[in-house]
Parts: sequence; C-alpha cells; structure tokens
Amino acid sequence: MKALGIHLLIELCSCNRQKLDDMGYLERIMAQAAEVAGATVLKTAFQNFNPQGVSGVVVIAESHLTIHTWPEYGYAAIDIFTCGSRVDPWKAAVYLRQELEAVDMQVRDFQRGIPWEITDAVTSHGALEHASCGGANCQ
Amino acid sequence: MKALGIHLLIELCSCNRQKLDDMGYLERIMAQAAEVAGATVLKTAFQNFNPQGVSGVVVIAESHLTIHTWPEYGYAAIDIFTCGSRVDPWKAAVYLRQELEAVDMQVRDFQRGIPWEITDAVTSHGALEHASCGGANCQ
Repeated sequence: MKALGIHLLIELCSCNRQKLDDMGYLERIMAQAAEVAGATVLKTAFQNFNPQGVSGVVVIAESHLTIHTWPEYGYAAIDIFTCGSRVDPWKAAVYLRQELEAVDMQVRDFQRGIPWEITDAVTSHGALEHASCGGANCQ
Repeated sequence: MKALGIHLLIELCSCNRQKLDDMGYLERIMAQAAEVAGATVLKTAFQNFNPQGVSGVVVIAESHLTIHTWPEYGYAAIDIFTCGSRVDPWKAAVYLRQELEAVDMQVRDFQRGIPWEITDAVTSHGALEHASCGGANCQ
C-alpha cells in the first residue's frame, strides 16, 4: 500500500459512564486529543441522544477523530485517522483513555492509502512516479 | 466481541478527479449515501483544502460516514460505521463507488463493540447479562 495515513480503531471499555454521556465534556476532550496528537482542529459536530449516548466528530487538517458512546455499557468506539509524519495518533489514544478513565482499551491500527496492486498499475502509466504525501490535507 | 456496529474502511481508487475536489458535490453524495444505507442524517461538516482535497463527515443516528480525498491521486479514503440491523453500510459503499466512478475499491470490514474477554468479565458481574443493541444511537 502507498500509505497516506494511519487509522486507529479503538474500543474503550469500562469507562466513567457519566463522562460518556456529557456531550460538552466529550467535545472538549476530543478537540484536546487532536491537539495532543499535534493535529489542527478545523470543525466539530456533536450530537447527544435520548435517553443516553453521544456521537461526535472532529475534522482536523490531517483527517479526523470520531467518538460514539454507549454509557449503559461504559463503552466508547473511537477512531483516530491522521496523515502526515508530524501527527501521532497514539498520543491522542492514550490521552482519551486517561480522560475517560477506561479500564480496558483495544486498538487495531491500519494504514490507509492506495493498495500496491493499484499503485503499481497506475505507476506503470507514470501518474504516481513522483508522488509523495504532499496533499493540502496531509501536512 | 459483543458487536455493536459494523465499520467499513474503504480505499476508493482511480476515481473522477474533478468530483474528488468538489466539496458541495461530495457533501451531497455522502448524505445521500447515508440515506441509501437506510440511515438518518443528523449533521454534516465539510472542509476543502488549498490547492486541492476535501475532508468531510456525516453524523448519522447510527454512527458516521467520513471521506478524505486526494484528487491528485484519484483516491478517496471513506469510512462507513453503522449500528443497528436496519442499516446496510455496503449499500452506501456501492453507491459511492458508482458516484465517484472509482475503477478500484478495497473494503476492509470490522465489527465494533466490546471485546469478549472484557464482556465476559463484565457479564460475570451481571451488568451485561441482558444487554442488546438498544442504545439511543443504535436504532
């Protein structure tokens, strides 16, 4: 794969349930997590649910962070997708685990980008020969 | 894992490059993709970059869709995360591939939720014995 980013799928378990239902708090710590990772926050969009639970996204210059919470299970599904070498998504993961007082955290990490078999096919036509991670949203 | 959702990581390659740089168009088709999947759109947040590229998120009642585009590579990284049995994220994937005229699509699909070893530990204390996907954000 021609890697353009790193994506962490995080299952955060046995968290503080009150915090998982506090939209304002979650919006603050998700934005702060982006800062901790070295990212630049552009936009946020959060929504709370009745009777409980919150969904939220933080658009960053380097991709995004998202969170969905199930306070009734003490569980949050978090995504951290970053591109560029100046951002460290793992710092955001550690910060969020600490803030939400999670007892358990499972992280699956993946590269995002163009699969090699496709990259090879395109490169053979010259289009990607000098390509590098230089997109405007990939600082 | 006690599954609470399905998450598709999609690499969409050799797309129509003009479309990948058209923020208004992308916002419309991402919202439409949510509808195609049977989801309910709550909020959207999109951002374009200079000289090119777009990032966008669609918060749905059943989790989220995101897109990040690299028009210079004809590439888009798309996520579709849904919970609940009434939503089919694959329909959204097929729709977006068609709209963006992608020649190649790689999809990795994952369950999101509470890992079994953690579920078992909690269940042994009774907390999850009768749990089902009944969260407010999991319609």
